[in-house]
Formats: sequence, structure tokens, C-alpha cells
Amino acid sequence: MALVVQKYGGTSVANPERIKAVAEKVVGRRRKGDDLVVVLSARAGETDRLIALAHEVSLSPDAREMDVLLATGEQTTVALFSMAVRNLGVEAISMTGYQAGINTDRSYGQARISGIETRPIMEKLHEGRIVVVAGFQGYDDEGNITTLGRGGSDTTAVALAAALGADVCEIYTDVEGVFTADPNVYSKARKLDRISYEEMFEMASMGAKVLHLRSVEFGMKYHVPIMVLSSFTDAPGTLVTKEDEEMEKVVVSGITYNKNEGRITITNVPDQPGMAARVFRPISDAGINVDLIVQSGAGIPGRADISFTVPKTAHKKAMEIVEAVAREIDAGPVHGNASIAKISIIGLGMRNHSGVAAKMFDSLARENINLKMISTSEIKISCIIEEKYAELAVRVLHDAFELETAPHGRIEVQEET
Amino acid sequence: MALVVQKYGGTSVANPERIKAVAEKVVGRRRKGDDLVVVLSARAGETDRLIALAHEVSLSPDAREMDVLLATGEQTTVALFSMAVRNLGVEAISMTGYQAGINTDRSYGQARISGIETRPIMEKLHEGRIVVVAGFQGYDDEGNITTLGRGGSDTTAVALAAALGADVCEIYTDVEGVFTADPNVYSKARKLDRISYEEMFEMASMGAKVLHLRSVEFGMKYHVPIMVLSSFTDAPGTLVTKEDEEMEKVVVSGITYNKNEGRITITNVPDQPGMAARVFRPISDAGINVDLIVQSGAGIPGRADISFTVPKTAHKKAMEIVEAVAREIDAGPVHGNASIAKISIIGLGMRNHSGVAAKMFDSLARENINLKMISTSEIKISCIIEEKYAELAVRVLHDAFELETAPHGRIEVQEET
Repeated sequence: MALVVQKYGGTSVANPERIKAVAEKVVGRRRKGDDLVVVLSARAGETDRLIALAHEVSLSPDAREMDVLLATGEQTTVALFSMAVRNLGVEAISMTGYQAGINTDRSYGQARISGIETRPIMEKLHEGRIVVVAGFQGYDDEGNITTLGRGGSDTTAVALAAALGADVCEIYTDVEGVFTADPNVYSKARKLDRISYEEMFEMASMGAKVLHLRSVEFGMKYHVPIMVLSSFTDAPGTLVTKEDEEMEKVVVSGITYNKNEGRITITNVPDQPGMAARVFRPISDAGINVDLIVQSGAGIPGRADISFTVPKTAHKKAMEIVEAVAREIDAGPVHGNASIAKISIIGLGMRNHSGVAAKMFDSLARENINLKMISTSEIKISCIIEEKYAELAVRVLHDAFELETAPHGRIEVQEET
Repeated sequence: MALVVQKYGGTSVANPERIKAVAEKVVGRRRKGDDLVVVLSARAGETDRLIALAHEVSLSPDAREMDVLLATGEQTTVALFSMAVRNLGVEAISMTGYQAGINTDRSYGQARISGIETRPIMEKLHEGRIVVVAGFQGYDDEGNITTLGRGGSDTTAVALAAALGADVCEIYTDVEGVFTADPNVYSKARKLDRISYEEMFEMASMGAKVLHLRSVEFGMKYHVPIMVLSSFTDAPGTLVTKEDEEMEKVVVSGITYNKNEGRITITNVPDQPGMAARVFRPISDAGINVDLIVQSGAGIPGRADISFTVPKTAHKKAMEIVEAVAREIDAGPVHGNASIAKISIIGLGMRNHSGVAAKMFDSLARENINLKMISTSEIKISCIIEEKYAELAVRVLHDAFELETAPHGRIEVQEET
């Protein structure tokens, strides 16, 4: 008899019919003997609806009150779901983030879990009940309601699995698992059986939406086996787990792309100490996250070009800031390009295989896909290319690294939205 | 500077526009220097919407989970309202029943307040904030969410006023106060300036909807001055308070009627000890509340007729039960009449004025309104008459006791729904 934490997203509990269907699924599992903690998101669309409501009463809704408001979304689903389970003759009890003992810091809207008091859940489990926990929410040391930010229910589930010492954390989504590439982009993409936390973490950072970044962090830190699978089929899914020798043999595990960044190049920056700081300080002061940064020699001696990427939504604002800086530091013209894509290949095997980068560049060059920026990490290589080539690049690299036929499954790519 | 508890009902916070309007009103009051605790109901219709949702997932929704679900209604309004107040530049903070320290027993759906921990609210008041409390909800000793039942927000407000030692509890509704009679039934009805708890209590019991029965109980028990007024006008309203000499001079304060009962008469009951119990035990076992009971001698010696009233909704069921009992105890035929009305006159002055009943009966008789049952209490006389005469009876008695011109205002009548 295993202790299992399951998480169902907003589309899985979108309406009474879905809720009843998931309840059937959960009750069936319970009858097989497993102890179950079920974490639920708000009904699909509910959070956006509540945010819109808040903006109808206030120009800039107070962060604390926004969390009080948003927390009602999950409270509604856990109550309805518990009713549906009991209606099937199985004992269930709902818990809000507070009742489930999910303690967080006070950064409203993006709170981080600081600790979990497991006694309340454990007591109910010992009474033989299915415990239904409101995802995405917690409470701070003064009892204020907090929320964990988008995708927070994944984090709630993995954190609970870690705290409860669960055998597995099952994340039910609307996809069948983690794929080598976005099946919508390349039909040859394959579903993975297993993937390492490190790879999954890079995938999530690169824009794969299948798991929330912080939930992967939690899984990695506490070694929680995470199973990603579909709530609409009974397909096996993908297990995110500790790396092993087999995984290390795999050079490239998967490919992601991301069209949500814009590029900015500031030319002829005086090549002196502190210049980079002069450029990036005002950008971070404006709350804009910089992703890739590449500095290269410019045509003119004693000068350098600095290129970097920012979220597309912040591209225009960043351009204005950088143009002002350029004048101050007497640099050259500033060029911006918002129609780029970042394509990345990820794999543990890169650590001890050479020539991976070369193979990536060759394959893309052969299709006349020009590389505007390159950035590498221990298990990842990312290139900035023209946006229109993104899907082509995915297919080209998928073939080049033989992901279709490789011994192990691969990682899904989904475009960030 | 006074400490004031205000309660706004569902129609007052039905949508963002209403919420902003009430926020303006409250902020204006705050700027005059009063400390404010604002108790809110769920948006009009929200509770019914949630109940319908529950019945879509479960044939008989679990009581605990129903309270978890319903509690989201008030949590939503307090969050939105606090945002609206802060948007006007005044500090406000929302509190759920739990955060406000409203401790109850565990009778889900109809919990009774057992105690209030005032420290959290007091702290926020001392910080100069408007404290916005979710009405209708509380928590039991194990931290389960409970609700107080329909009209529970009135009870929350009056209980908070008592616990906080507020100077007054203002209940904002969609009527301008307490009237001598339903203005829709009799245009001569007058709004009261003041009324005693005892009278208000009888009014509420008799079906006047302006205040929730339990909130009047609380006010009476803890001597909380309750002001009933409209949230849509600035009219003065009616103060519910301790009785004083002036009030005692008033023979009849107001008139109510109620069309929600049905009458049952069981004839020729053997006049022996224990017979009444034989009749009423099975009715109460069926969960049916009996209101008036009158026993009278039947035509036959050693026999008696027993008449009583039950809620119209339970009339048919009660008839079946009684007919069975009649056979068992060898009584005569059972007669039922579901088209009756109960008309009541209420006034502290009855205690030391004679002839009030006679005057009531005469006035009705003069209009050929036949009295089917009569029941009296210290400050109330109720008669059962044919339903069709209800409105006529209100007007006749209003004139007979000169309520239009009497020195003090009178009590509203509203038909229970």
C-alpha cells in the first residue's frame, strides 16, 4: 500500500462533469488500497475571472486582498471534489492551504513554502480518508492567506509529497507526459519513460510548460519521484527522477524552443571595467529579467558589442532604457529584434560527450539557419535564431540527434504562453 | 469617536458598482473619525449559485464541505470590498470568519457562535484600519469552517458588536427601517424611530424579515443597540434597543401577517391523558415544527378537538401522519386547511392594558373575518384567519389601534418567503 500525492489541474476540474469523472478515477485508485492526498487547482479560467473582478473594483488591487480573493478558487474545487468523492461512498475531507499546514513567507502572489505541518493531513489519512488539499495557497506566520503564483499547485503537490514522504507525486495534466519535442511541431516526437530532474529543470526553464519550475526544484532537492501523466487517458506517462547511468549515456534528451524573448544589441560599448554594470543595472532596476548575454569584440578596437535577450513584453521598455544608457556611456547605435526564437538542446550526456555543439551548429547551418547568439550550460546549448525558423530547427535537430529512435524517451517542448 | 459595526447584505455588494458605492459610503464615515468594522454577506444570488453547483456533483452534498464551499461567497466580497476601500486611499484589511476569531459549535449549516477572540480585530483597528469581516461564517474548535445559516451575517454583526463593545451595530438593508405594517399592504404604515428587542423578537418570529431572529436574540442578551437602515438612502432608520417607559405606554406597536402555515384539526380525540403526546410525537419525529396549538371541547362528551398549524410545505405530510394516528387512537375525521393566514398584533403595552384582545376580535368581526384559532403571549396576540382576508385584516387593525397617528413608530410586517 503506497502513499500517493496526486495533482489535477484546472482543466481536469473545470466543471461538475469533469469533477465527477476525476472523483471516479481517484476512488478507483483508493479502492486498490493506496493512501491518497489529492491536490487541486481552481477551475480553468476561474483565476483569470477573479483577477478581472478585482480590477473592476480597484485600479491596482492590493496584493494581500488579491490572494484572499484568488484562494477562493481552489477552496471551491476542493469542497466540490470532496462532495463528489463522498457521493461515491468513500470518505474524503477538504483542506484549505491553512488547514493543510502549508506555511509560506509573505510575498503575496508569489509566496514560497517555508514549511509544512504534516500532522493534520496524516491524522485524516490514518482515519482512512482521501485528503483533498487546495493547491496554490498557503498562510504566513500571522495567518494571512498567501498564494504561490501561477503553476503553484504543482509546487504544493511536490512539496506535500516531500513532507509526507510519499512514494510518488503524480501530476495529471492535459498531455500524456514529457516528449522529445512538441508533437504539434514534429510528429516524430516520442514520449519519455524517464527523465532526470536536471534535464526537466532545464526544460522547464527553457519554456516547457509540462511542470512548474519550482516544483521540479522541490523534486530535485527532496528526491521526490514525479510522474507526469494525462488525466484523460490511462497512458503510462513520464517519470521525473534521479539521474542514473543509463540517462548519462544519452547525449541529447530533448529539444525546446521559446518565442517569448526579444533581443537587444548595444554596439561599440567602450571596453572598460564596469561598463556591463552601467548597462544592466538600470534594466534590472526596472524589474526586467535578462536571459542570455553575449559580449563580442566590435569592429572598432577598444570597443565591444553587447547583446542580450529580455521577455518580449518588456522589449520596448528595455530598448528605451538602453538607448538612454548608450548616450550616457558614448556607445554606438542600439539594435532591437523582437522576432527571434531560442532553441535549446538538453541532455545529461553532454557533460562527457564532445562535439555536441558542433553537430548542432552544423545541422542548423545546413538549413541556412543563422545563429544570432549562442549560450551553453553543462547540460544545455541554446541558440537564438530568427523566429520563423523555430519549428524547422526543432525538426532538423530532432533528426540530427536521432531522438526518434534513441534508446530513451525524450523531453517535451511546449511554447511558453 | 465611536466604534461602529456595520453590516451590508448581498444586494448592497451584488456587483463591482455596488461594492464601490458602499466603499465610498464607508470611507466617508471613516473620515468623520469613527472606528469601523464592516461585516459583509455574499453577493446576492451567490449562495444559491454555489448550492446548485454542489447538487451537480452530489445527490446529498456533505454538510462540512457545503460550508467550505459557501464560505467562499463572503471571502470573495470582503477581499473585493477591501480592495475598493484601499483604492480610495483608506487602509482596510479583510478577515475570514477564522481570521476574525469567530468560534462556533460544529453544527454545519446552522452553527451557533460560542465565542469571539477579539484581539485580531482590535489590533487592526488600533492600526487605524477599517476591518472587513466575512459574515455568516466561523470555525469550530478543530479549525473546520462552519456557517451560521441564512441571515447569519446579521448575527455575525451583532455578535461582533457585543464582543467588541461597539457603540452601535448598523444593519444596512434594502428597506428604510422597521414599519408599523408592510407599506406594500397599507400605504398608511409608518416607519418606527425606536422599538424594543422584545417587540422586534416577536416580529421576527412572526415573519418580519428585516432582522434575522438570532441577531435580535444576541442584541437583547448583550444590550447591543441595533440600527436598521437602508444602504440606498440616507434616511434615519429604526433603532432596536432596550425598552423604556415611553415604549411601555404603547399598547400595540405593530402588525405582522404570515401566509406560510397550514392548519390541521383532528376531531373527537378521546379526552385522556397522553393523547396530545400520541398526536404530536410522530409529527416532531418527522421533523415538522408545530406552531399554534388549540384544544377545545368537541360536541361529544369525553372527546376533544385538537387544532394546530404547521409550515405549508409540511402540511400534506403532516396530514398523512395525523390521519394514521387518528385511526390508532380511534379519533374522528381529520380536517386540513392550507389556505390560512396568521395575523398578529404586538406591543409591550399589552402587559398592562386590558381589552386589547377584545378590540382586535371586534374589529375583525365587524369585517366578518372569522377567527379559526387564537393564541396569545405576554406581548402578542395571533389569530388564524382565512388567507384571503390577510391584507384586509392588517388595514383594519392598523386603523383600529390608530398606528398611523400613534406617538411612536411601529413595526414592519413582511410576508415570510
